[in-house]
Amino acid sequence: MDTGTQETETREHQSDTVQHVVIVGAGLAGCLGAVLIAQQSALRVTVLEYRHDPRQDSAAKSQGRSINLALSTRGLTALRAAGLDHAVEQAGVPMHGRCAHNRRGGISVQPYGQPGQHLLSVSRRKLNEILLDACDSMPSVEVIFGAKCTAVDLEEGRVSFTVSAEPDDGNDRRDDTASQSEERTLVADLIVGADGTYSRVRSAMERQLQRFDCSREHISAVYKELTISADSINAMCATLSDSARQNIMPQEYLHVWPRRNFMLIALPNTDGSFTCTLFMDETELEQLSARGERAVHDFFYEHFPDAAELLPKLGKQFFQSPTSPLVTLRCKPFNYKGRAVLIGDAAHAIVPFYGQGCNAAFEDCVLLATALHANKMQNMQQCLSDYASARKANADTIADLAIEHYNDMASGTASLTHILRRRVGIALNRLFPHSFVPLYTMVTFSNIPYAEAVRRAKRQEDVIQVGLRVALATVAGGALWYTRWKLRTNQPNR
Amino acid sequence: MDTGTQETETREHQSDTVQHVVIVGAGLAGCLGAVLIAQQSALRVTVLEYRHDPRQDSAAKSQGRSINLALSTRGLTALRAAGLDHAVEQAGVPMHGRCAHNRRGGISVQPYGQPGQHLLSVSRRKLNEILLDACDSMPSVEVIFGAKCTAVDLEEGRVSFTVSAEPDDGNDRRDDTASQSEERTLVADLIVGADGTYSRVRSAMERQLQRFDCSREHISAVYKELTISADSINAMCATLSDSARQNIMPQEYLHVWPRRNFMLIALPNTDGSFTCTLFMDETELEQLSARGERAVHDFFYEHFPDAAELLPKLGKQFFQSPTSPLVTLRCKPFNYKGRAVLIGDAAHAIVPFYGQGCNAAFEDCVLLATALHANKMQNMQQCLSDYASARKANADTIADLAIEHYNDMASGTASLTHILRRRVGIALNRLFPHSFVPLYTMVTFSNIPYAEAVRRAKRQEDVIQVGLRVALATVAGGALWYTRWKLRTNQPNR
Repeated sequence: MDTGTQETETREHQSDTVQHVVIVGAGLAGCLGAVLIAQQSALRVTVLEYRHDPRQDSAAKSQGRSINLALSTRGLTALRAAGLDHAVEQAGVPMHGRCAHNRRGGISVQPYGQPGQHLLSVSRRKLNEILLDACDSMPSVEVIFGAKCTAVDLEEGRVSFTVSAEPDDGNDRRDDTASQSEERTLVADLIVGADGTYSRVRSAMERQLQRFDCSREHISAVYKELTISADSINAMCATLSDSARQNIMPQEYLHVWPRRNFMLIALPNTDGSFTCTLFMDETELEQLSARGERAVHDFFYEHFPDAAELLPKLGKQFFQSPTSPLVTLRCKPFNYKGRAVLIGDAAHAIVPFYGQGCNAAFEDCVLLATALHANKMQNMQQCLSDYASARKANADTIADLAIEHYNDMASGTASLTHILRRRVGIALNRLFPHSFVPLYTMVTFSNIPYAEAVRRAKRQEDVIQVGLRVALATVAGGALWYTRWKLRTNQPNR
Repeated sequence: MDTGTQETETREHQSDTVQHVVIVGAGLAGCLGAVLIAQQSALRVTVLEYRHDPRQDSAAKSQGRSINLALSTRGLTALRAAGLDHAVEQAGVPMHGRCAHNRRGGISVQPYGQPGQHLLSVSRRKLNEILLDACDSMPSVEVIFGAKCTAVDLEEGRVSFTVSAEPDDGNDRRDDTASQSEERTLVADLIVGADGTYSRVRSAMERQLQRFDCSREHISAVYKELTISADSINAMCATLSDSARQNIMPQEYLHVWPRRNFMLIALPNTDGSFTCTLFMDETELEQLSARGERAVHDFFYEHFPDAAELLPKLGKQFFQSPTSPLVTLRCKPFNYKGRAVLIGDAAHAIVPFYGQGCNAAFEDCVLLATALHANKMQNMQQCLSDYASARKANADTIADLAIEHYNDMASGTASLTHILRRRVGIALNRLFPHSFVPLYTMVTFSNIPYAEAVRRAKRQEDVIQVGLRVALATVAGGALWYTRWKLRTNQPNR
């Protein structure tokens, strides 16, 4: 670890070569970005993180950011590039399909894709720790914790921050009050904003660029996290026969209780517990909360009876869990000249329903590192512009898909047609593995750029529509011909 | 003027009655809002303005905000409610139509509507001064200049600000550095954010509300302001015959040089000068600027030869005038519970092409004041929510119309069909004054809510489409019948 960071550094612009990369944010994108960018040996990477080291500070949980992650092909591909895929796979639980629970507690399973295709349920915290260990193992990467970014001068490439020793309050939205702690400034050739939805680096870009577009839009649903403990599952199983036991929260699936206007999901953890998330319209959730613990209890037993049985201290959990909004953040451009660039949520926060937030962020890291390496850290303006404009279209696409997918997941009726369509899709994919790939499969189990995946899916849909019409016309024509032939052959008998 | 504002005030919540309204921003919306709200005698209104008094400080021009305003019916209706319509009309120049200039310097005039219907070209600064005088004339309104808002506590209704004596730099985007000047806090029952595109009050709402949507989007065009002086017009006219003189920038029109990818417009001032605005794609403008003063000169003489003749020190003006972006700001909701509400650009900044920015802001003021009066300043939460949700739909509509209108105005070809469609529209309106009103007329010369105007225009369009089809079918049927009849009557002659 390079600890020789100076208070104020001088930088010589030698033929526009990047020498020092400062990444703001040591979350998932920031850490993986650091590892992949630092693979270019000529670089020094400093990562600034305003929280304290989660590996040392048990209180510094990533509050409000705890939806379990479902890593899929894009994310795992990126981790493989950093040599971290095996470590992460061992820390996660594979999910081979979606297990839907009906109102009577019955379950039905829909596979995600072909046999072997699966998502990986992994805790955000555990993943972050693996990535931080990877940063530590690289001599050219330094992570500074407790570093609150106070100013970003994009033109000069200067990042100022205060370093505090005390644990933070974990508040995700930064305020402007300077703490009493040490003030430092780093000079960077490239600043990477990996500092999430309320990014400081993005705010600096917004101030500097006369034409910086930015939008934050919330969907009407909000969410609350609850936990199904391994103990409660074991206690329930102890009362059941072996065969009945197998229907109690099988570990190898993402569980979903689709109820049209609201939805409960549960992702497995390695310790046998499940992290549940209730998604619900904000007004309805407020009304439910206002009716008190008893009403919440009744609500769960009415709509999610099997889950309710497994949620210990349900009412208490419900009221202790904060209600969080679901935001889509879009901005443009993702870069400031050749000096700064945004990755992950700082560039494109999305709602979690397609399970692609972290996967898209990891894909950013690979593509940015690849672009930097391919350009040998030169012609930075062109390099970052190309990365940014290519990435923008894909980020917008997955943002739209993620919002659309909420309705697909939550709606009870769509669920049936959805299952049918998905099964037909998977069957067609098995018959024509190269020419027909369902959109979900392309998004989840391939590295095809999101926008291209949507274009391909549309073309496939068109072909199927034409095929269906031809089939229908053939059937109708055949039926007509048969009827006429039947009438004609029957006539002599009359 | 009530100067008894205390440092920290106590407030008693007597049956949710509003007693003290603090308006942040003494621009056009803030001032008119103050006057209209203060008409309810039980109220005290304080307006905080971070600039210094423009009536005393000749340097405190409204920099970067100087597109001349075209007031139309909505704006004038609002001013009438404050008894200010006559004063403003005397300070402006009526524009009865659009005067289009072609590449050879020829002009053609299109009336805006029926005879008598006109826009009023008025300088933003002059209008602001009239409104500030109106504020001063009301005992219950106090305007505090040089008051930089430093914090807004929406929950407690506290607005903190520093009051500085020195003139400001006029920078529209506020920074967080506290000046050495006096710090004060007001306690308000209602906070009105009239503080423009970069609103502090809106930022406070964004922090407080878990689900606050906000987007800032720029169009590709930017603008630069130039001035045609009265002297240059007079000098030109001195060389011409009386009849030729009448074609040199007639005062009673909005002048426009539509050139597809860019456009020059000019609005008359009372002193005989014109304020011109060049709208152009940012990249093209940068390329033009990079080619230097000579290239700019040639560009103007090629595309706007008659205007170029009248723009003194053209190259110098061009390079001294700052380039400004054109932004559409949307947010939701416009209110924070029953405590705060946004009006004008703080809620919905729009691009200037429909000439409705100030008119929409003034309409906000009337509707908000009316809602407050009708509710007798009680049930504030419901009152502000109703205002906000009704206003949101109309704000979104005019934002979309304003963007669409740029293409209509700039495009040379659309200009022809546009003229035709507008003339047909005006003719139909004359024939059926109640059942057919062109969209432009509804937006510009009526107080019909914007969203309703668009719905009506769509219905009219549908009726015209059906009418055209019936007419076509009748003509075709008639022609067919005539041909047959002709053939039949001709046959015996053969």
